[in-house]
Amino acid sequence: MKREDCEALDREDPLRPFREQFELPAGLIYLDGNSLGALPRATAARLAEVTRREWGQDLIGSWNRNGWVDIPQRVGDKIGRLIGAAPGQTVAADSTSINVYKALSAALKLQPQRRVIVSERGNFPTDLYIAEGLIAQLGGGYQLRLIDSPEDLPAALDASVAVVMLTHVNYRSGRLWDLAATTQAVHGAGALMLWDLAHSAGAVPLAVDDAGADFAVGCGYKYLNGGPGAPAFLYVAQRHQHAATPLSGWFGHAAPFAFETGYRPAEGIARWLCGTPSVLAMSALEVGVDLLLEASMAQLRAKSLRQCELFLFLVASQCKDCGLQLASPSDAARRGSQICLSHEQAWPIMQALIAQGVVGDFRAPDVLRFGFTPLYTRYCDVWDAVAVLSRVMRQEIWRRPEYQTRLVVT
Amino acid sequence: MKREDCEALDREDPLRPFREQFELPAGLIYLDGNSLGALPRATAARLAEVTRREWGQDLIGSWNRNGWVDIPQRVGDKIGRLIGAAPGQTVAADSTSINVYKALSAALKLQPQRRVIVSERGNFPTDLYIAEGLIAQLGGGYQLRLIDSPEDLPAALDASVAVVMLTHVNYRSGRLWDLAATTQAVHGAGALMLWDLAHSAGAVPLAVDDAGADFAVGCGYKYLNGGPGAPAFLYVAQRHQHAATPLSGWFGHAAPFAFETGYRPAEGIARWLCGTPSVLAMSALEVGVDLLLEASMAQLRAKSLRQCELFLFLVASQCKDCGLQLASPSDAARRGSQICLSHEQAWPIMQALIAQGVVGDFRAPDVLRFGFTPLYTRYCDVWDAVAVLSRVMRQEIWRRPEYQTRLVVT
Repeated sequence: MKREDCEALDREDPLRPFREQFELPAGLIYLDGNSLGALPRATAARLAEVTRREWGQDLIGSWNRNGWVDIPQRVGDKIGRLIGAAPGQTVAADSTSINVYKALSAALKLQPQRRVIVSERGNFPTDLYIAEGLIAQLGGGYQLRLIDSPEDLPAALDASVAVVMLTHVNYRSGRLWDLAATTQAVHGAGALMLWDLAHSAGAVPLAVDDAGADFAVGCGYKYLNGGPGAPAFLYVAQRHQHAATPLSGWFGHAAPFAFETGYRPAEGIARWLCGTPSVLAMSALEVGVDLLLEASMAQLRAKSLRQCELFLFLVASQCKDCGLQLASPSDAARRGSQICLSHEQAWPIMQALIAQGVVGDFRAPDVLRFGFTPLYTRYCDVWDAVAVLSRVMRQEIWRRPEYQTRLVVT
Repeated sequence: MKREDCEALDREDPLRPFREQFELPAGLIYLDGNSLGALPRATAARLAEVTRREWGQDLIGSWNRNGWVDIPQRVGDKIGRLIGAAPGQTVAADSTSINVYKALSAALKLQPQRRVIVSERGNFPTDLYIAEGLIAQLGGGYQLRLIDSPEDLPAALDASVAVVMLTHVNYRSGRLWDLAATTQAVHGAGALMLWDLAHSAGAVPLAVDDAGADFAVGCGYKYLNGGPGAPAFLYVAQRHQHAATPLSGWFGHAAPFAFETGYRPAEGIARWLCGTPSVLAMSALEVGVDLLLEASMAQLRAKSLRQCELFLFLVASQCKDCGLQLASPSDAARRGSQICLSHEQAWPIMQALIAQGVVGDFRAPDVLRFGFTPLYTRYCDVWDAVAVLSRVMRQEIWRRPEYQTRLVVT
């Protein structure tokens, strides 16, 4: 295997034209699109248009004239196509945390005889924090039951479980739950299923309708390339949309602009909106989603698998005996679009990599996380990244004092 | 009074240079900045910088390098200066609805022996809807008690009242509560005070600290000129910041990037954050807030009062016997920065005005709402607006069929 082989793979790559649709800094190998997706070239122009023309010129009239009022549903339905949801079940809105709160609240209301939320200790923390906050708020014996690994799920499912909340692709390890089988098992126990698709949407093929998922949430700023802190999304299966949401803001009202004194919830997915959406943030998100919709999810997954395998092969051959351990499942079918390596010096190693132009993520305490975003990651990037990693490890570049200082990281 | 007198007022206006800082469509008289503030000239450039340089080039590193991680507190403290809050008590975050939810939840937790939320029937509906949603979620005898007018407040205050939630400037009438006296009366009854400052922040001088307010929320897209659906703000007086929030997302954690399994709330105002903030939306908001901070709030209020008086004087003289009734308090000291007129044909009248280039708001069922935003509204605009109104009324232009069709409005 040589770099030329990677160049050949890039030439043959059917997704190759997409890279040109992104602004990427020259010389940087960005393997962190699972933390913050790259900037689509079209975004700045779209933002300028929304700002200068729609806001600046059309002003308040834009809510109707330029379709601002429907933007959460419009972008939501587009995201729905990426996650296998028929129209009318997905909205772009709020943050993932807020959407988790909506979904968990609704699930508990739908299952009044059950008081347990099951999740995973290694779930992304904000999901757990929100469950904690909801439970503390509700009182009355609600409980968060955490499992340590997928094998523990069946034993955790009993008649007290109202809802199971799992992140489909683990943020740290990249481990992938079997979405359909898990949903089925959870339903078999009479519980509802809430999927966090933050590291899945736009990264792996998804079929939430077919799987019978009850609720799903996800993130707009990772694989959807919606920009820093982009609005999140919420999927509520049609059969549950009648449920009550405590975040009953005016955008979820049946007639928001009638200014009625009493809350009269909208029918359908609109009920799951709360406050006024940020049109600027939504518009940037829409550009990212539109771009992704032009690609084939099957091709994206195939390229992601190939890049992950290539990365592992190169690490195995070029970083042998460097103390790097695979912290992701070894079976490609059980991984999302990322590879995690563990090393007790993960922090300075990642700092050294970033300084050498390879951007991944550190995840406490000891994980190096590399995300592969097939829309814009080239096979050559994978080659070059491992070459840098190998140099950082073999020359122990990470020992330099400037890489030791620990700062707040994202 | 002639148009020349208005031109003279504009020439002498100390706030005159600010108009040049806004992009305003030629020929349009925009009296709707209390619904959606106009576009500051600096916003598009700032958004382009955040997008192209910070997101596009610095990518994930921007959370530290470009200060993204502190943006809710940084912008919050700036808004704090506009509302009379010392630093460390205000964040820009989420929507007004979500922030109302946080504040009401906290207030009820702080007052466990009391179960009543008092508000006003004419409050902005989303505040009431959120109170309804929270009460329905909590069960246990919580109750929303609505008063019809300020005079009814004393009688509504008894030992069962946990919190009083009022909008300082009424969205429909512009009527202004006495913030300090009302807060004092509410405290006298042992209740907490939550102010909605959506129509106040940036419009009237505010002193929430001095008044002893407990919580306040407000809107970024009206007088703060933060853009459509801009992030809202939340003020939590320092003495209450230890309270529990059910929306305990990772940005409110003491160490968000340590990825701890358990929720450990941040000290101070950071606890009141929830999910990842939209950096694009926050950056646009910051431009609007910065611009407002350059102006003197006393000068803004003085100009607003003068423009409102001028408007009323001109309406009285030029629209006599047209059936327009003042729907705002006649005492200027008891009004925010808007004038409302009622007329049973308010809908087609406003449509006709908009078609003639004067943009105000219709508010069901019969209100014409005109907002005065002294940063960019000229005295001449007030003159010209009334001239158009007078023509629409006297020539009954509003009777034309094209102004009769009722659409969704904002």
